Amino acid sequence: MVHVIKIGGNIIDDAIKLDDFLNRFAKLDGPKILIHGGGKLATSVAKNLNIEQQIIDGRRITDTETLKITAMVYAGLVNKTIVAKLQSKSCNAIGLSGVDGNCIQSVKRNHPTIDYGWVGDVESIHAGFLQNLIDNRIVPVISPITHDGKGNLLNTNADTIATEVAIALSETNEVNLRFCFEKLGVLTNPEVDGSWLRKLDKKEYQSLKEAQIISKGMLPKLENAFKASESKITRVEICHADYASEQGESFIGTLIV
Amino acid sequence: MVHVIKIGGNIIDDAIKLDDFLNRFAKLDGPKILIHGGGKLATSVAKNLNIEQQIIDGRRITDTETLKITAMVYAGLVNKTIVAKLQSKSCNAIGLSGVDGNCIQSVKRNHPTIDYGWVGDVESIHAGFLQNLIDNRIVPVISPITHDGKGNLLNTNADTIATEVAIALSETNEVNLRFCFEKLGVLTNPEVDGSWLRKLDKKEYQSLKEAQIISKGMLPKLENAFKASESKITRVEICHADYASEQGESFIGTLIV
Repeated sequence: MVHVIKIGGNIIDDAIKLDDFLNRFAKLDGPKILIHGGGKLATSVAKNLNIEQQIIDGRRITDTETLKITAMVYAGLVNKTIVAKLQSKSCNAIGLSGVDGNCIQSVKRNHPTIDYGWVGDVESIHAGFLQNLIDNRIVPVISPITHDGKGNLLNTNADTIATEVAIALSETNEVNLRFCFEKLGVLTNPEVDGSWLRKLDKKEYQSLKEAQIISKGMLPKLENAFKASESKITRVEICHADYASEQGESFIGTLIV
Repeated sequence: MVHVIKIGGNIIDDAIKLDDFLNRFAKLDGPKILIHGGGKLATSVAKNLNIEQQIIDGRRITDTETLKITAMVYAGLVNKTIVAKLQSKSCNAIGLSGVDGNCIQSVKRNHPTIDYGWVGDVESIHAGFLQNLIDNRIVPVISPITHDGKGNLLNTNADTIATEVAIALSETNEVNLRFCFEKLGVLTNPEVDGSWLRKLDKKEYQSLKEAQIISKGMLPKLENAFKASESKITRVEICHADYASEQGESFIGTLIV
């Protein structure tokens, strides 16, 4: 089983939470891949550099200066900090962006009404390159910076990268894909932490969405999760980062079915 | 023959020069490794973020905030920009820092009188990891960010990284190491571009140094070059970036003997 785990900004922004998570991730047996988002650091660096940030529907508009910041923060500081910590925990990690070994190529988003700037939608995953690394017991740590094959970097949604990487590897592997965040799973009552669903199918998802119980920020994550669950991936789960590396009975989270 | 080529800030800071260089580098046949320095971008980012920079004997003092900037700029923006450009030129590159695959471990500098901060001196090169990449026709592009194995990133001199990588690979390969900069080679008259030496041995180097003909900035580069020339490396050369990929008669530069 290949474990593909995606962590978000809430873990990355908190050095203690990140270290806790990486301790557990380092101990997880078998082939594994970590995909990380950005966190608030890019926003604060942009603010300190007086570069105005625009966010539409939870997605950052990536002008040229913002692209530079995301490449610096995600592919540079965040990615290398995570890899350094994993190396110190005897986990032989390698930090990758989509450019490296051409592992994730994307296409600049062409939206009818919104100019997202340097935002890329995943076009192809070089699964053989990632497979070769995991077969050699090297652990890929992937930042959400991809490229268009024409020399341009592109800022890409990390949930989408996790989904596409997991789908590509599921052609030749059993894959467990986990999206981690700060809740125990998909909640039926956003105010009550204990209200997480053990399972969620598409029908129930549609009714939760219509009842506006699922928050806007969760929608792209769940769209990705359902896309993944309809592929050859063995298990797709949404869980708290504390349970990212738990197996069997000790796992807590929402299974997407 | 494995080509190990080091480029400095003067090329990285100039988009047209960089693109020219990468066009030629992409066409160079056979296994190859590119090591890049930082350039002025880190200094300008630090300035815009109001972080004061201190440079002693040509070496940046790396406090915690400066380390973050070097990781962002060198391992992030500069490294991924170079790799994206190489991918667009059909050169299958992979961007690496020392943390990645644990390829370069270093030790925090412990100087009797100067606190260099988060500066690392190379301790070990994981040559097998680099060899595996080049055997698979992947081209490593290495940024001067290393780590101490304890979870800390360290800022490391790029000339030293080039030297140590070349020495490590020379155990099992023929290696040609080239340090590229903005002159045609080591000059006997700093005012005259055409005064470059075709060859330089240690004795002549000592006398040029004593006569203060060789500038301070060149000393660390030449110390590295002579260290390399005393190893199993086949050829060590100092040249202009325009000649980095030239072979045989068309090459211009200073051979270190």
